[in-house]
Amino acid sequence: MSLSMYQASVPAFLQMLNNLTAMFEKAEAFITERKVEEVVLLNWRLAPDMFALTRQVQIAADFAKGTTARLAGAAVPSYADEEKSFAEIKQRLAKTVTFVQGFKAADIDGSEDRDITLTIGGQEMRFKGLPYLVHFSLPNFYFHATTAYDILRACGVPLGKRDFIGTI
Amino acid sequence: MSLSMYQASVPAFLQMLNNLTAMFEKAEAFITERKVEEVVLLNWRLAPDMFALTRQVQIAADFAKGTTARLAGAAVPSYADEEKSFAEIKQRLAKTVTFVQGFKAADIDGSEDRDITLTIGGQEMRFKGLPYLVHFSLPNFYFHATTAYDILRACGVPLGKRDFIGTI
Repeated sequence: MSLSMYQASVPAFLQMLNNLTAMFEKAEAFITERKVEEVVLLNWRLAPDMFALTRQVQIAADFAKGTTARLAGAAVPSYADEEKSFAEIKQRLAKTVTFVQGFKAADIDGSEDRDITLTIGGQEMRFKGLPYLVHFSLPNFYFHATTAYDILRACGVPLGKRDFIGTI
Repeated sequence: MSLSMYQASVPAFLQMLNNLTAMFEKAEAFITERKVEEVVLLNWRLAPDMFALTRQVQIAADFAKGTTARLAGAAVPSYADEEKSFAEIKQRLAKTVTFVQGFKAADIDGSEDRDITLTIGGQEMRFKGLPYLVHFSLPNFYFHATTAYDILRACGVPLGKRDFIGTI
């Protein structure tokens, strides 16, 4: 077996997107038991100038869809950022899982030298496929997934590291 | 160019270990200006049953050293978890950077099928090299690096996503 761009991306994204979904199921049980509104958790932030939970999940999902699409040379679909409930967050994750699953190894393998251009905050960034995945996409993806977990933990949702990593 | 086990591990770990060091330099300027004791930040937690900042950094560093050593089939050095200051945290990061930098591509490339056994929390875990890196080590490493960042942000240290990702 030899590590490939597909193996380093699609299955890693799917693992964490599915774990995030499972965390929201635990969050749902938690707020039902504690009689807390979903919106309290969805708007929770670790600092006033950090994104709230909803946005953390949206961005994590967007890194999964954007990275796989760009590595495959496919169009990046645009999803409206309108989620206002746990159910809608889980739909966003499910939609992203379906999109990411649509790529086969042959679509993404060999993309190490592909030219990737993206615009973030008005700034154009240019990468080759390999550093884009290893040094930009994966750290960003895990950053937002972890911060979503950290927000749920800070709100008291009973999660552990096993929920983050999942069954491998 | 073809993605390899070395490229997916060593340079990714080094990027983030160096970024963590730079974040602690900003944290140092912050506490000096605000007259806060280092220990307040080092003991800060996002939830009572999550690890404090010091431990988050120790574990992130340990994933970098343990993963590279195991993929290379080398012994994993044991570092005492005794850091009590920003200076000592930065020393731990620097020591880890030196260790990780000691591996060359030839030491780690081809480790996709290597048998990896480790014991975490008294539980033995067995992996092949590729899933160990992609599905266990990298998510764990980024988890603890992100949570360290999140704690610094929650404490008010003026950091942004660019500090986490660094210059690529």
